Amino acid sequence: MPREFRMTRRVEFHETDLAGIAHFSNFFKWMEAVEHAYFRSLGLSIASTEPTDGQKIGWPRVHASCDYRAPVRFEQEMEIRLQVAALKSRSIVYDIEFAAISDPTRIIASGQLIAACVTTDPTTHQMKATAIPPSIVALIES
Amino acid sequence: MPREFRMTRRVEFHETDLAGIAHFSNFFKWMEAVEHAYFRSLGLSIASTEPTDGQKIGWPRVHASCDYRAPVRFEQEMEIRLQVAALKSRSIVYDIEFAAISDPTRIIASGQLIAACVTTDPTTHQMKATAIPPSIVALIES
Amino acid sequence: MPREFRMTRRVEFHETDLAGIAHFSNFFKWMEAVEHAYFRSLGLSIASTEPTDGQKIGWPRVHASCDYRAPVRFEQEMEIRLQVAALKSRSIVYDIEFAAISDPTRIIASGQLIAACVTTDPTTHQMKATAIPPSIVALIES
Amino acid sequence: MPREFRMTRRVEFHETDLAGIAHFSNFFKWMEAVEHAYFRSLGLSIASTEPTDGQKIGWPRVHASCDYRAPVRFEQEMEIRLQVAALKSRSIVYDIEFAAISDPTRIIASGQLIAACVTTDPTTHQMKATAIPPSIVALIES
Repeated sequence: MPREFRMTRRVEFHETDLAGIAHFSNFFKWMEAVEHAYFRSLGLSIASTEPTDGQKIGWPRVHASCDYRAPVRFEQEMEIRLQVAALKSRSIVYDIEFAAISDPTRIIASGQLIAACVTTDPTTHQMKATAIPPSIVALIES
Repeated sequence: MPREFRMTRRVEFHETDLAGIAHFSNFFKWMEAVEHAYFRSLGLSIASTEPTDGQKIGWPRVHASCDYRAPVRFEQEMEIRLQVAALKSRSIVYDIEFAAISDPTRIIASGQLIAACVTTDPTTHQMKATAIPPSIVALIES
Repeated sequence: MPREFRMTRRVEFHETDLAGIAHFSNFFKWMEAVEHAYFRSLGLSIASTEPTDGQKIGWPRVHASCDYRAPVRFEQEMEIRLQVAALKSRSIVYDIEFAAISDPTRIIASGQLIAACVTTDPTTHQMKATAIPPSIVALIES
Repeated sequence: MPREFRMTRRVEFHETDLAGIAHFSNFFKWMEAVEHAYFRSLGLSIASTEPTDGQKIGWPRVHASCDYRAPVRFEQEMEIRLQVAALKSRSIVYDIEFAAISDPTRIIASGQLIAACVTTDPTTHQMKATAIPPSIVALIES
């Protein structure tokens, strides 16, 4: 079922802070990492091109949030679980859960990303919301 | 009124990504930077010590979220506006807004941080929620 | 004398690690930040355009190094001192020193950046070394 | 031969910058990541404890450098090759090379880390250079 994807990740030293735990901002990098790994699992890249007109597509975030339940420390491993919570015409809602590998029922954090599909004008660099290409929709729904 | 605080910040090169805009995860670092600058403006440090028993106090995040309205680019300056939205017995809710310096009515993003007040056991490193010290409450409310 | 530039910087929470000190990789971000502030002090931006032909210029690093003498901790302030050590036809060598604000003779670290001047092909994205534009050379030498 | 270690790594989106390439500061995070993976391959953790007296050992960097030969881009994979170049009484010198997975003879960058072995005073937080524990020396030399 391509609407779910899981990967594991180990906390790195530079991701910790003086409180001895992973800094909260890293969870947003990890959410994006699992989103991009999910796209690769579909044979896609987040940095792809619109098939019909060759325009470059981007996926800026319009929303990101995270609820933190338990700290995670250096060298601990997490399972990061992505779920496509909603596939809209111009955006995708991802629910993402972080669980401890040592105890998969122990939820470290749960978050949400909403990525909008945009094209970027090559001269003005303005981004414009656009419909998700049907080929991408088909891969997610397959 | 000490429940509000503003600072300016310029987007640095390493904060941009290949889309040519500031990476969304940086907004969480910036939210924390304004929180800490706010504490310094009260004569406090986020890495302080409980006055009554000398125990070390920490402020891990239990929630962080951000809504992105417009991209911000390299070397652009923002005004970051922090507001103490709620001062609870064991946590503080901050609402934080990012505005363009070039046009202060243009909101780039708005977010929320909820920081819990904890003490950390020096041997087990376990964090435990604790009441915000009265001296800190007094400074925020003054 | 435009070949020297100084700025101050305070260590942020997300820049610390579990050893309680600023992570060593941040010194490279700080070196770049002072380089860019130096360019702004000359009325330039690192993301500028070749005056003669409108081509975009970039300054990728060909070398970066740092020697660490003493740790720096959360909320400590540093003076970052940049010096143009060599201005070559296609590159600039910067020597950068980090001193404690609380004791300016206490050197925290000293490093070096070598930035090459390149143009980037807009279609292939290949970078090509190019002579530093005379207008930039003139500003640095003035 | 435990003095060599290799791992692969894929460039993540947040590691790129507006020039469309991985930001140079990430190479230092990657060098540390391979150092720590090497320690794990020996059954060690960089955040270990001196066997004889239970004191906590740390490995702050005294030197870090990198020479950049070619850019690396989003989603490209590298092989990171660590070599213990010198094992001294109180420090370890690592030479680290980054090669393209798509063409292992294409060197992206080569760098060096020198990590000192220290103990940290639990009250003053002062770091003090110390001899590398014999058990660690034995594992590296075996």
